[in-house]
Amino acid sequence: MAARQNKTERFMVEELRREREASSLNISELTTFVDAGEMLSERRKQLFDLVVEDPVFSMADTYFMSREESFDDAMKKSVRFVQKKKELDFDPVESEIFKRAITEVLPISVHQDMFIPTIKGQGTPEQQEKWLPLAKDYKIIGAYAQTELGHGTYLRGLETIATYDPSRQEFVLDSPTLTATKWWSGTLGHTATHTVVVARLIIKGVDRGPHTFIVQLRSLEDHTPLPRIEVGDIGPKYGFFGMDNGFLRMDKVRIPRDQMFMKYSKVLPDGTFVKPPVAKAAYGTMVGVRSSIVVSSGQGLARAVTIATRYSVVRRQGESSTGGPEVQVMDYQTQQLKLLPLIATAYALNISGIDMMRTYYQIQSEIMDGNFDSLPELHATSSGLKAFCSYSCCEGIELCRLACGGHGYSLASGLPSIFVRYAPAMTVEGENTVLYLQTARYLNKLYSQKLPSSGLADNVAYLASNYTFQKRSPVRTAQQFLDPHVLLEAYRQRARRMVAIASLRLTEGKRSSLSQSDAWNLSTCDWVTASNAHCHYVVLKSFYSAVQSSDLTGSNRAMMDALCALYGVFGITKYSGEFMTDGYMSSEQVALARDQLYSLLSTVRKEAVPLVDAFDFPDEILNSALGRYDGDVYTHLYKWAQRAPRNKKKVHDVYEKYLKGMLKPTKAKL
Amino acid sequence: MAARQNKTERFMVEELRREREASSLNISELTTFVDAGEMLSERRKQLFDLVVEDPVFSMADTYFMSREESFDDAMKKSVRFVQKKKELDFDPVESEIFKRAITEVLPISVHQDMFIPTIKGQGTPEQQEKWLPLAKDYKIIGAYAQTELGHGTYLRGLETIATYDPSRQEFVLDSPTLTATKWWSGTLGHTATHTVVVARLIIKGVDRGPHTFIVQLRSLEDHTPLPRIEVGDIGPKYGFFGMDNGFLRMDKVRIPRDQMFMKYSKVLPDGTFVKPPVAKAAYGTMVGVRSSIVVSSGQGLARAVTIATRYSVVRRQGESSTGGPEVQVMDYQTQQLKLLPLIATAYALNISGIDMMRTYYQIQSEIMDGNFDSLPELHATSSGLKAFCSYSCCEGIELCRLACGGHGYSLASGLPSIFVRYAPAMTVEGENTVLYLQTARYLNKLYSQKLPSSGLADNVAYLASNYTFQKRSPVRTAQQFLDPHVLLEAYRQRARRMVAIASLRLTEGKRSSLSQSDAWNLSTCDWVTASNAHCHYVVLKSFYSAVQSSDLTGSNRAMMDALCALYGVFGITKYSGEFMTDGYMSSEQVALARDQLYSLLSTVRKEAVPLVDAFDFPDEILNSALGRYDGDVYTHLYKWAQRAPRNKKKVHDVYEKYLKGMLKPTKAKL
Repeated sequence: MAARQNKTERFMVEELRREREASSLNISELTTFVDAGEMLSERRKQLFDLVVEDPVFSMADTYFMSREESFDDAMKKSVRFVQKKKELDFDPVESEIFKRAITEVLPISVHQDMFIPTIKGQGTPEQQEKWLPLAKDYKIIGAYAQTELGHGTYLRGLETIATYDPSRQEFVLDSPTLTATKWWSGTLGHTATHTVVVARLIIKGVDRGPHTFIVQLRSLEDHTPLPRIEVGDIGPKYGFFGMDNGFLRMDKVRIPRDQMFMKYSKVLPDGTFVKPPVAKAAYGTMVGVRSSIVVSSGQGLARAVTIATRYSVVRRQGESSTGGPEVQVMDYQTQQLKLLPLIATAYALNISGIDMMRTYYQIQSEIMDGNFDSLPELHATSSGLKAFCSYSCCEGIELCRLACGGHGYSLASGLPSIFVRYAPAMTVEGENTVLYLQTARYLNKLYSQKLPSSGLADNVAYLASNYTFQKRSPVRTAQQFLDPHVLLEAYRQRARRMVAIASLRLTEGKRSSLSQSDAWNLSTCDWVTASNAHCHYVVLKSFYSAVQSSDLTGSNRAMMDALCALYGVFGITKYSGEFMTDGYMSSEQVALARDQLYSLLSTVRKEAVPLVDAFDFPDEILNSALGRYDGDVYTHLYKWAQRAPRNKKKVHDVYEKYLKGMLKPTKAKL
Repeated sequence: MAARQNKTERFMVEELRREREASSLNISELTTFVDAGEMLSERRKQLFDLVVEDPVFSMADTYFMSREESFDDAMKKSVRFVQKKKELDFDPVESEIFKRAITEVLPISVHQDMFIPTIKGQGTPEQQEKWLPLAKDYKIIGAYAQTELGHGTYLRGLETIATYDPSRQEFVLDSPTLTATKWWSGTLGHTATHTVVVARLIIKGVDRGPHTFIVQLRSLEDHTPLPRIEVGDIGPKYGFFGMDNGFLRMDKVRIPRDQMFMKYSKVLPDGTFVKPPVAKAAYGTMVGVRSSIVVSSGQGLARAVTIATRYSVVRRQGESSTGGPEVQVMDYQTQQLKLLPLIATAYALNISGIDMMRTYYQIQSEIMDGNFDSLPELHATSSGLKAFCSYSCCEGIELCRLACGGHGYSLASGLPSIFVRYAPAMTVEGENTVLYLQTARYLNKLYSQKLPSSGLADNVAYLASNYTFQKRSPVRTAQQFLDPHVLLEAYRQRARRMVAIASLRLTEGKRSSLSQSDAWNLSTCDWVTASNAHCHYVVLKSFYSAVQSSDLTGSNRAMMDALCALYGVFGITKYSGEFMTDGYMSSEQVALARDQLYSLLSTVRKEAVPLVDAFDFPDEILNSALGRYDGDVYTHLYKWAQRAPRNKKKVHDVYEKYLKGMLKPTKAKL
């Protein structure tokens, strides 16, 4: 609590104090809005405080650690996390928030995020009864081994096999080739005692496709790998130093029949294979995971833009026209164009994320009632949104880094670590391009079916055959771009046109001599464009709806409306060519959008600092010398550097070892 | 030599062999073209071989090292580099090539790249006579301290002062504030014995602006910092682990009068200040440094795209329509769109870089003859090109990383290291946005002067008042985009329109109530767009001219023409809104450009591997498991992982330290 309460009493640089004093926003109301309501917001603050106050979770030395020290540190934090989790009996949402505060990825996280959910989601009641107590009590720690050295997103290509041996009622798990080696799985390297393995099930020579199994990896006595198991770490990565992403090779490892998860498919003792009744339910989980990536993309970008915004207000560079101190970097229009649309994007992603999670929970309950109607649309949209949002996040983090000039390259800025922390989101849980194309297949299906709008979900109703087709944008003044109807209609028109172009290329390809799959392939670049346009529309729409249905009033409401407009107008100038397709917008209208963009930059500039303050990251969690709440940037960059490992001695060992001989060659050596 | 000769005899995966056998390109001719001629190409290969064969320069364990181990390693390599340099008497070009092969940044590199050139460029003959022999013989090692904790690109804001004391004929160097601390200077932290310091010269209370001084930092006896000198490392960074970027604080350090470099400005013993005769000459050096960033941007991107291209041919993912093995990732159109324009960009940057270096040398010799006519245009263009090319390079490297899927995130891919190695180029030697605006000021000046084309250099002749203004693009078929005249004219039209828009906003701002500087500020976003369009044109033009004036023939010539067209057409689709401004292109014409783009992807796809082979990076220098010449990717990813530090023990120390207590809580603990 101490950290939080002292905020207003502490030292604060003049530049930031002035911005905050001039603000007309109600920051705590905005924080509540971003946190998705008062109750969650309160809980989030309590959990953040718990992390901030616990010295085990301190990040003060994180940037000085070697990768191996990071692993040790992350393991220490894992054990503490488990203690806290048991002690305070976290529910999954609390657990997620607590881990968000810890910031670093914990080597045991896969146990909780994938191992336990797999037992719950795919195990029979007997299997759950056997494994869940062990897992929940951390008597075993589990990983999830799906990806292989040679196989990623394309699941059916997996080479690991599980052959059923009816004579002993066992499965024989095997990695028949080098490329079948399980690879990348977190927690697998040195932490896990068990793992879920995804392998192709072979019964009597028939390939039944990928199924999930549970395999013990290490002795529960002394943690040594079991016979026929080869397991270890895949080696250093860009980030995720504290995670033991691992590899696994199995040399005909035998497991009993009840270690295949059999909630859906079943293998009877004699080897009879029983197909699952419904396959669709599995979609639900993926939608959940992808929605959570949307939420975390918003969080990642919010961190980065908090740092860059505060520092751009503190930092002065260049001559002032009035002869006063140098200009605050944030007052340069070019800096505003870099950062203010990113503030808008951070809000948009956070709020779309919440929106998606809500839809997800709602649809989960529909599924429980046996209603699968909304699932296809949600599944299709969540695929594309995962791609769209994870990319927006990472592109934005890098832009924030660049907007901090040289210091953005120092680990003290926090920005490199944020980038490498969120970058994997572009590849995991479905590679982004592949996911865009999943959404595209759905868009194509709807568009070519020529359904009336009544047959379509809200997000895709613009693809209806009877959709009123506005040939030309009616905009005549820059002001009109502030109207949500105008902006949303522009985004629908753009998306519809991009879908039409891709669809036409596909149809023409099919009509020519091309095979079905070649025709698809040769239209995929256009489909990615279409899919991106669709997702962009959905995010803007979701941002607007959240603001409109919120109880924000006064300045807060006005500022959120401005952020929605900024997000929308910025997109029009960025993708102007797409909005001009088929003459929907003229080059004059794009110029008006640009005028409105610049005007919104001036508006949002005034509240830039309060807007990022509302994300409410404690300094200890933001862990950035540049992004400090008090703006005392240079003192802390300097102090931090003094503590760097390389400065332990005034004369570094390299002098005796290498430099001395060069600077003062001895006679003997000459 | 061994490494090079064995290439053809070695094992090679089928996928790569097939591509190479089907090629109709003459690769060694292309290599010579990229190396800027036969003589340089031969020498480059010899120097690369020297590095490859020397175990001290081995990069085999680079990715396993901690930052501190990297520093030790880089210092060891530095000493070896100096030995080789002396032994083989490298000229500056050879030295540059040798360091390029070493790949890692050496902590002594600032000594050679900035310290010695400053003595040469700014020292009087007496100063040169005193300092050059010491420096060249490595009796002293020098850094270059310009940037401060609080000051970067804006030189006049520097706070470090050098006050002349005529009574003792000394300068007193001082860091009066915390923000005056010199920061970021390479070599300064623990390596340098001396440094150039840029400080504001104060004589009798008058501020004479920034000048350069030479200051001793450490004892030549034992390397301890001298009294009143506080020096050290600024702490860990994103990359550049082997470089000791340092800080320096001086507490009224006294140096004799002859330690201010006095080739231009002079301070006489009595404190009389003598201004330099011509200021322009200093521009020359900056042009040189920025040109070298263009060259190295080409090199960085060439490395990344070599890796991603080879791996995309080896990597198979997804169902084949013919029932054969999975599809080679490079055969997906979306993958082609990611990588093939980057191959074109890598060629364009390499070749523009050579072009710029040639122009630079030519203009250097004109300057020697007292002719400064070409300097302003070259200075303006080189600023923008540095920004344009460094950004293209880094954006491209990240795209290559993403195009490699999950494995791109492993250090074994080489891609993270390439990114962090080249990323600083976007900030150093002038922050990119600031540089774009320098170019913009020049473009604005020319455009508003309304000069006839005869008064303008070739690159900017399109801004002439009498430039034939093509209102509409004449293109009617996709084919026409293959014509260099059509493409170049489109780029000129776009650039001219972007300049016109920015210029209009500036003029209107000035006409309204805005101050001069506010009017400029509020037009800067438009000016960055204009400057980017101008640089894009210059690079395309330079790429075309180099190809056209080369002696390439047959398939090589045809492929280079295709790459030029791909580079140009890709730019049109990427920035289509700009090309459609004022109706220059219609949305139908942009669609034709897109058709031509897809058609060029098919053409270039066939030669993708040979095209990157022509960059001729030995495996040892590329240092990538994914980018190996033989394509034996998975074997080497696997072997590499086995050697990772985290796998030294089968049971990691974290088990005893943390996990055991959680998995097997003792009775006592319970």
